[in-house]
Amino acid sequence: MSDLLWQKPGIAIDARIQAFLAGDDVVLDREFFLHDIAASRVHAQGLHRIGMLSADELAGLLRELDALAVDFRSGAFALDARHEDGHSAIEARLVERLGDAGKRIHAGRSRNDQVLVANRLWLKDRLTQLQALAREAAAIALDRAEAEMLLPLPGYTHLQRAVVSSAGMWWAGWAEAFIDDAERAAATRAWIDANPLGTAAGYGINLALDRDHATTALGFARLQVAPTYAQLSRGKFELAALEALGSAMLDLRRLAWDLSLFTSAEFGFVALPPQYTTGSSIMPNKRNPDVVELMRGTYASVAAARTEIEQLLSLPSGYHRDLQVSKGALFHGFGKGLQALALLPGLLRDLQWQPEAMRAALDPSLYATDLAVELAKQGVPFRDAYRQAADPARWRARDPEASLQARTSPGAAGEPRLASLRARLDTLG
Amino acid sequence: MSDLLWQKPGIAIDARIQAFLAGDDVVLDREFFLHDIAASRVHAQGLHRIGMLSADELAGLLRELDALAVDFRSGAFALDARHEDGHSAIEARLVERLGDAGKRIHAGRSRNDQVLVANRLWLKDRLTQLQALAREAAAIALDRAEAEMLLPLPGYTHLQRAVVSSAGMWWAGWAEAFIDDAERAAATRAWIDANPLGTAAGYGINLALDRDHATTALGFARLQVAPTYAQLSRGKFELAALEALGSAMLDLRRLAWDLSLFTSAEFGFVALPPQYTTGSSIMPNKRNPDVVELMRGTYASVAAARTEIEQLLSLPSGYHRDLQVSKGALFHGFGKGLQALALLPGLLRDLQWQPEAMRAALDPSLYATDLAVELAKQGVPFRDAYRQAADPARWRARDPEASLQARTSPGAAGEPRLASLRARLDTLG
Amino acid sequence: MSDLLWQKPGIAIDARIQAFLAGDDVVLDREFFLHDIAASRVHAQGLHRIGMLSADELAGLLRELDALAVDFRSGAFALDARHEDGHSAIEARLVERLGDAGKRIHAGRSRNDQVLVANRLWLKDRLTQLQALAREAAAIALDRAEAEMLLPLPGYTHLQRAVVSSAGMWWAGWAEAFIDDAERAAATRAWIDANPLGTAAGYGINLALDRDHATTALGFARLQVAPTYAQLSRGKFELAALEALGSAMLDLRRLAWDLSLFTSAEFGFVALPPQYTTGSSIMPNKRNPDVVELMRGTYASVAAARTEIEQLLSLPSGYHRDLQVSKGALFHGFGKGLQALALLPGLLRDLQWQPEAMRAALDPSLYATDLAVELAKQGVPFRDAYRQAADPARWRARDPEASLQARTSPGAAGEPRLASLRARLDTLG
Amino acid sequence: MSDLLWQKPGIAIDARIQAFLAGDDVVLDREFFLHDIAASRVHAQGLHRIGMLSADELAGLLRELDALAVDFRSGAFALDARHEDGHSAIEARLVERLGDAGKRIHAGRSRNDQVLVANRLWLKDRLTQLQALAREAAAIALDRAEAEMLLPLPGYTHLQRAVVSSAGMWWAGWAEAFIDDAERAAATRAWIDANPLGTAAGYGINLALDRDHATTALGFARLQVAPTYAQLSRGKFELAALEALGSAMLDLRRLAWDLSLFTSAEFGFVALPPQYTTGSSIMPNKRNPDVVELMRGTYASVAAARTEIEQLLSLPSGYHRDLQVSKGALFHGFGKGLQALALLPGLLRDLQWQPEAMRAALDPSLYATDLAVELAKQGVPFRDAYRQAADPARWRARDPEASLQARTSPGAAGEPRLASLRARLDTLG
Repeated sequence: MSDLLWQKPGIAIDARIQAFLAGDDVVLDREFFLHDIAASRVHAQGLHRIGMLSADELAGLLRELDALAVDFRSGAFALDARHEDGHSAIEARLVERLGDAGKRIHAGRSRNDQVLVANRLWLKDRLTQLQALAREAAAIALDRAEAEMLLPLPGYTHLQRAVVSSAGMWWAGWAEAFIDDAERAAATRAWIDANPLGTAAGYGINLALDRDHATTALGFARLQVAPTYAQLSRGKFELAALEALGSAMLDLRRLAWDLSLFTSAEFGFVALPPQYTTGSSIMPNKRNPDVVELMRGTYASVAAARTEIEQLLSLPSGYHRDLQVSKGALFHGFGKGLQALALLPGLLRDLQWQPEAMRAALDPSLYATDLAVELAKQGVPFRDAYRQAADPARWRARDPEASLQARTSPGAAGEPRLASLRARLDTLG
Repeated sequence: MSDLLWQKPGIAIDARIQAFLAGDDVVLDREFFLHDIAASRVHAQGLHRIGMLSADELAGLLRELDALAVDFRSGAFALDARHEDGHSAIEARLVERLGDAGKRIHAGRSRNDQVLVANRLWLKDRLTQLQALAREAAAIALDRAEAEMLLPLPGYTHLQRAVVSSAGMWWAGWAEAFIDDAERAAATRAWIDANPLGTAAGYGINLALDRDHATTALGFARLQVAPTYAQLSRGKFELAALEALGSAMLDLRRLAWDLSLFTSAEFGFVALPPQYTTGSSIMPNKRNPDVVELMRGTYASVAAARTEIEQLLSLPSGYHRDLQVSKGALFHGFGKGLQALALLPGLLRDLQWQPEAMRAALDPSLYATDLAVELAKQGVPFRDAYRQAADPARWRARDPEASLQARTSPGAAGEPRLASLRARLDTLG
Repeated sequence: MSDLLWQKPGIAIDARIQAFLAGDDVVLDREFFLHDIAASRVHAQGLHRIGMLSADELAGLLRELDALAVDFRSGAFALDARHEDGHSAIEARLVERLGDAGKRIHAGRSRNDQVLVANRLWLKDRLTQLQALAREAAAIALDRAEAEMLLPLPGYTHLQRAVVSSAGMWWAGWAEAFIDDAERAAATRAWIDANPLGTAAGYGINLALDRDHATTALGFARLQVAPTYAQLSRGKFELAALEALGSAMLDLRRLAWDLSLFTSAEFGFVALPPQYTTGSSIMPNKRNPDVVELMRGTYASVAAARTEIEQLLSLPSGYHRDLQVSKGALFHGFGKGLQALALLPGLLRDLQWQPEAMRAALDPSLYATDLAVELAKQGVPFRDAYRQAADPARWRARDPEASLQARTSPGAAGEPRLASLRARLDTLG
Repeated sequence: MSDLLWQKPGIAIDARIQAFLAGDDVVLDREFFLHDIAASRVHAQGLHRIGMLSADELAGLLRELDALAVDFRSGAFALDARHEDGHSAIEARLVERLGDAGKRIHAGRSRNDQVLVANRLWLKDRLTQLQALAREAAAIALDRAEAEMLLPLPGYTHLQRAVVSSAGMWWAGWAEAFIDDAERAAATRAWIDANPLGTAAGYGINLALDRDHATTALGFARLQVAPTYAQLSRGKFELAALEALGSAMLDLRRLAWDLSLFTSAEFGFVALPPQYTTGSSIMPNKRNPDVVELMRGTYASVAAARTEIEQLLSLPSGYHRDLQVSKGALFHGFGKGLQALALLPGLLRDLQWQPEAMRAALDPSLYATDLAVELAKQGVPFRDAYRQAADPARWRARDPEASLQARTSPGAAGEPRLASLRARLDTLG
């Protein structure tokens, strides 16, 4: 590892301990290296604004930061085990290229707020992606809800056949679910949209930093005011972001469950294109819906990320090294979660209903509730109507489309109110 | 247990199984019994609007529902093991008092949406309480931040003394934290503010229910459109509410940690009034800050509630009885969490700083960062200034108030920007 | 609340704070009140052995402790909000009845080790119950495995039909699972079987307590030696016990999943006696397998208990009041878990296979693997045989019993090795 | 990616879906690639024993498997994105080198039991490492307990000074804790020590595999009998292993908490060698105990691994692709956990007490309990003695060593019973 910023002469370094301390930092820091460079640009501009950097020094720093970003993107610069972490790597490169100007960039900044701001920008990006993916899934679900509102499908409670439902009602539920998820992502992004740069190690600094300029230049909605709170928000904001992700993943888990059942031989309601399935190493007859199962399993990774961060946060205020662990957790959760969500729109578009199997599953008992309500409309008190309709001798096969069209409670197939979902979807950009 | 709504003749009941099925339902249902009555009133009004109840029947139902609420509040009506659950108890009482009119109230409604709507109203109430408690804590913290901005307190990172901080900077952090928490509570309440009543068992019903009227009458901001989504939101919305609660509890846990340390003999920075402490059964000399420790421990109960619900939700869509478990979890988490938060404002108001101990802890090393920045201001590149200031021979005791006043980065003691926090607090009502 | 043991004169008590501190202690302490009395008996005997109690005093204490146990069991003594907790209640009663002898019982004991020992005895009891219930479930599963080894049932992977399996192979899996669970319960009980009584507040006491006598008299296998470790084991041992419970509950969750699918109309492999099902409030046609679903949901309560305790344990060594929260968690987890397991043996005994539906589900593809292996036996390299057998044109219906009998790898239906499971079961008492 | 074992002609492959399916499999599979090779050797031997491989074929397979292991260790063979997973890579290599003999190795085996057996061998190795590390920590703690039993240290409850304790009592607690942890590791390894090889895809196979030979040859204690249970144990055994690891990590977390406090300026009881500390990027005066903090934070990674696996396991019986997620979780938890534990022995050996600071913290109140017990020995009923000793006017400074020597309850400093801990340690090999 190259020079440690804080190293004092004469103190031995133990390689195994250094490896433990570094963890996967340089690997993880690749994730937000570009955000760190972006924030470093703004910090340098700020130092210039308060006279801590000359115009020439600033120009040099901006030029070299841009060059480093280019090199990083192209692979010419690799963030690897030679560096303690990404933050040190930036400073080391600037010192190497610019000498004293490089040595000036850390004035008024701590690694603590440097990590926070890069992390915050990264989180905002990920929440934007989450919103877009949830919105995309909702849009497809809504289109298919409109097209398939009267395609009959058994409705289940307790995994028992209950009443006639429809593919469209199934789709409408997912449309509304992912609209909510997209809104939650947006609201969470707004909630964390506060600039921590300029809070130093959690107690501010004896420099009149122009934090308002940094807030605007980095695109934050507001200043995170108290330096002590900037530190307290480490982990807290990550958990909120993971919660927003988890909300979408909860829905994905349940959707994947439906598809796992619907693609079984016993249900047989859905066929998946072959690229969504895999075979077995020993059983020649198998085509397995592995994509759907891995989607279902992804919630676990998001929940694990939550646990990993939550378990760290039993700490007094101020920075503690324990918090380093949160980085890996965050990347794991968002990495797995967004990867799974990115496949969802295609899957929703490609899945094919099997109308005959769906219709074949509509046995006469599924109309018993229709009958009870019809009796109630005729004046029989509902509780009595219910008892009459419980007699299997009264159950008859019916036309499922007619049953669906008579389902006129708002939101049901006879009055689906999809326009109101469309309106909410449209506000999501 | 009284008559089961769905019981068919000739089927034996096994007492041990019934006990397992019922769980703590009747006890838990006390929590939202009044919400259930409120929603039942609106459902009855809705049935009248579509001709399913006469004016007289409606009047009878409203009168008896109001009477039941009065009896429940007074204790004249006890929800106990005679009832399968609170929902059955309401219908049974109405049938007992009104005969056929009582038997009509469940037309177009399932226990599924009945539970959902009562639960939703309860959640909104609890989030309102959460917002108010977080706001109250923030208000006290902000007042004390203004009053004590220049009262010196060591600032720590890694539990090591780092730089001079102040009581006011400590308070400002908590003020901003609890303002954020109050906003998160409000945003979460807005997110779940959708009416599930009228979705029946998750597939709508063959009645043109006036769901828009119910939405307005119950004070919901919007309709939860898709009946399938109403079911999918069970658990999902509870988790979001617990996350909002957890956000405040994370802060409470860290605040309690600070106080646990600060009240130790070794730190000695804070004294608590005696009502916040208890004694030992064996050690006559002890006064222990139990309230603070239980506050710290309360996060665990909120996390447990999350786990309990999260672990249930690996299910296909539609209602499943597993979801019943979520009720107890929700009450446990919110019950413990709000109880702890309710004591916080008093504790914040009553805690007494011990200025001499705080000042005694300010050893000269705490000014090393001030010195490094001063050298940087004089033109020494920061990284060189840092190395110079790392020499203990250069460390000198200073006036801590002067150090604080020179801390002019926005948010720090010399430029605390408390007005912007006050402005946010004021928008929280 | 009655007199607080540690109360000093002149200190005000705040009712709301006291309520927060007490939590549900007196209710929870009912759970191990009898264990506390049993340990108090032994502590009194120990004090007599070292001359701290006269023979008369000992006799009085034993008599009154026995009487208190009788009164508690009969309901004549109620542990309620008048008492700070169960421990105080015992001492208060002894003082009330015996005067000075009562005031002597707490010599050499702290509430800390008093709680630990009662808790430990309770945990051992619960693990014994867990072992017995898991063993009982295993015994029934093993009996049915023997009886139904050649009853054909489709075997699934990825919820897709894979090969012919049998009811007996299904049962054998559960038999081995619950044997393992019973063993884990026993091993965990052995691991925690150490006596903490006599460690006082975590630092021992200046009395030569006869801890060896107490260890024997209370039936512990060994002394928990270090007083500091007695405190460190709080929570740690509870988590181990919950893990042992969780192991059985994981199996119960998956078993319940199977039954939830098998009782659906689509699978139709299992019928449950009606006492295991319930109806719907609105759908007259429904019979739902609620018992199975609640069994599936119970894992969540055990996981929640783990979370609640785990989240507490980020603490320095020594006792902290946070740990009080663990009591409720423990009772919740074991209460719900053992209640669900207690219904399992009956359910396993009562469930009825539907052989025709099972046989109807055996389509010809399920013999493709048999064919591939047969080709391999004839000398075709397996990977080539696999490709040949993947051709649907080669799939034929077969006799499922013959396929099962030819499944001669040890553990499979043709060579089930149930005797070895029987032998392990028998060692479990 | 190279040829997929199960691929059928004419089915398109979607690169993004394949990437999602593969996940980090080839990277993760490096972890147990050598275990997979070892189990493949034994499987080949077994096929030879039942006539499915000729002696020449067997010799070729064993030679090539050994060569592959050598190449893998040397880096000549890299398991990378060209392979679907490690299992496919082995078969592909054997086919490439040996032709038909390679195509024969998968007879009677599924990737399901191939994964299980490699995973199981890996888990056993890791539990052996865990046992050894816990034992090593216990041995050092016990040595220091013997050496430092009468070195006074304040004993705390509620972070408040309670009574005089000693460095030796502190060490004895950790010794007993890590002895327990080593035993738990051993017991858990014994519990999972069952051979799943030969269970194929969870339903056995129509070959009379010699599973007893495989059990012995791979060093397993017993056969995992039921093929269905082999599948059910996936995840369940991983959770048990993580729980054993978590038990040690709980202790490490609390130990790290002690050290975090003890190395603060306020306590000042412990000094760490400089290689265990790091500096700050901005504060020149800082030396932070980062190693201790990361040790404390490591519990979070183990808990996260538990969550990730636990959240997957709400599934019917049989294999599901969701379970693939458990591999990464397991490696993450054990990787981080064992890395942290591996540094513990050195840390325990190197930490230096600061006796003057420890002694300075012993204020007279710490002898109040001694006094109360002394009064009780003189015949004052303890509850009265307690009240007398609660009077600060009676508190006097004492000789702490004398107080410790008078602490004669077994396990306390005057009668520490370390020999019994030594005896347990010695049984751990």
